[in-house]
Amino acid sequence: MKSHTEYLWFNTAKRVDFVNITHQVEEAVEKSGVKDGLVLVNPMHITAAVYVNDAESGLIDDFKELLEKLAPAGKNYHHHHTGEDNADAHLKRTLQGHQVTMAITNGKLDLGPWEQIYYAEFDGMRKKRVLVKIIGE
Amino acid sequence: MKSHTEYLWFNTAKRVDFVNITHQVEEAVEKSGVKDGLVLVNPMHITAAVYVNDAESGLIDDFKELLEKLAPAGKNYHHHHTGEDNADAHLKRTLQGHQVTMAITNGKLDLGPWEQIYYAEFDGMRKKRVLVKIIGE
Amino acid sequence: MKSHTEYLWFNTAKRVDFVNITHQVEEAVEKSGVKDGLVLVNPMHITAAVYVNDAESGLIDDFKELLEKLAPAGKNYHHHHTGEDNADAHLKRTLQGHQVTMAITNGKLDLGPWEQIYYAEFDGMRKKRVLVKIIGE
Repeated sequence: MKSHTEYLWFNTAKRVDFVNITHQVEEAVEKSGVKDGLVLVNPMHITAAVYVNDAESGLIDDFKELLEKLAPAGKNYHHHHTGEDNADAHLKRTLQGHQVTMAITNGKLDLGPWEQIYYAEFDGMRKKRVLVKIIGE
Repeated sequence: MKSHTEYLWFNTAKRVDFVNITHQVEEAVEKSGVKDGLVLVNPMHITAAVYVNDAESGLIDDFKELLEKLAPAGKNYHHHHTGEDNADAHLKRTLQGHQVTMAITNGKLDLGPWEQIYYAEFDGMRKKRVLVKIIGE
Repeated sequence: MKSHTEYLWFNTAKRVDFVNITHQVEEAVEKSGVKDGLVLVNPMHITAAVYVNDAESGLIDDFKELLEKLAPAGKNYHHHHTGEDNADAHLKRTLQGHQVTMAITNGKLDLGPWEQIYYAEFDGMRKKRVLVKIIGE
C-alpha cells in the first residue's frame, strides 16, 4: 500500500470565497503514484467546507444565498457569548457537507464530466489548511 | 491491497426519484473479494446524491418535502441565467449529503439493522452513473 | 495493509445529545497500529450523525436550534403513519452530515487545531453503535 499526504494552504481575500481546487488534488494524486485508491480532501479548520459540484459562478452564488438564508451572519448566536462572531460559518460549512472522499482509477481522479472539487471558505482572510490524504496502490 | 471499481447506471422515469441500491453495492463488495476495507459510493453527476437511511416510503416523502422547502424548484436561480433550469437539484443533492463511504468487515457490507444505501436523483430522466470504489484486503 | 474494526456503544440520557468522541477514535487509531491511513466513523443507526466541529457548548446549542428550525420535532410527518414518531431525527442527522472519514498520519489522527469528532444523537435513550473502521499501513 502507498500513501501520500499533502497540506494545501489558503488565505482568501474575502470572508466568504469558493475556490476550485480540482487541479491541486489532481497534482497530489499524480505525485502519489497511486493507480487505484481513495483520496480524502478535508478542511482542517471548522469554518470551511470541501464539496463537489459545478464550476459555474451563478450556481456558486445560489449556494451562498441558500446558506445565508439558512444560517445568516450577524445573528445573536450562543457561540458568540464566547467572544467569537463566526457561528454562521460553522453552521454553513456543516450544511454544505464538510469533506469529500474521491476515487483514483488508472492513476487519475475518477471524476464525472462536471464534478469539480471546491474549497468553500466561510470565515476567511486568514491562513487555513486543507488535508489531502491518498491511500492505494 | 485489493481494489475493485464499478459503475452503476441509472435512468429514472421521474425527475425526482429515490432508489435503494444496497443490494447492488453488496454485489460489488462480493465481487471485489475484499474482506476488510472501505467502499466509496459516489454519484458522478452533480444533481444526484447517495445517502444512507431507512427504506420507508413515508420517510422518503419527508426527505423530498424538506428539500423542496429548503431549495424549491422553479425559482429564478442565478444558475438559470446560463440556460440551465436545475439549480434546485444541485442544492438539494448537497443538502442531502452527496456521497457515502461504508465499511466492509468479514467480506460483507458492515451495516446497522436499518442502514440502507439510496441513490437520490433530483434531475432524472437521463442516464447517470454512480461510482463504487472498493479498497481493502 | 492493516485494518482495525471497533464498535463504540452509546446510550444517551436525553433524546438529543452531542458527545465528543475524539478520544475514543484516537484510542482506536492507536490500537490499530496504522501509521498512514484512513478512519471511517459511521453511526450504524439512522437517527444519529457523526460530524467534525468545535468543542464549544454554545455552538452545539446553535446546531441544535438550527436543526430544530429546519426539521422540527412533533410535526405530522409521513413517516409517522407507520407508528414511528422520530422522522425529525432522520432528517436532522442527514442535514448534519451523517459520517466522517479522517486521516491518520504518523500513527495519529491528523486533526487541525479545533477539529473534534462528535456523535450527535437525535433519538436517544436507547443503545446504539458507531462503527470505527481503520485501514492503512
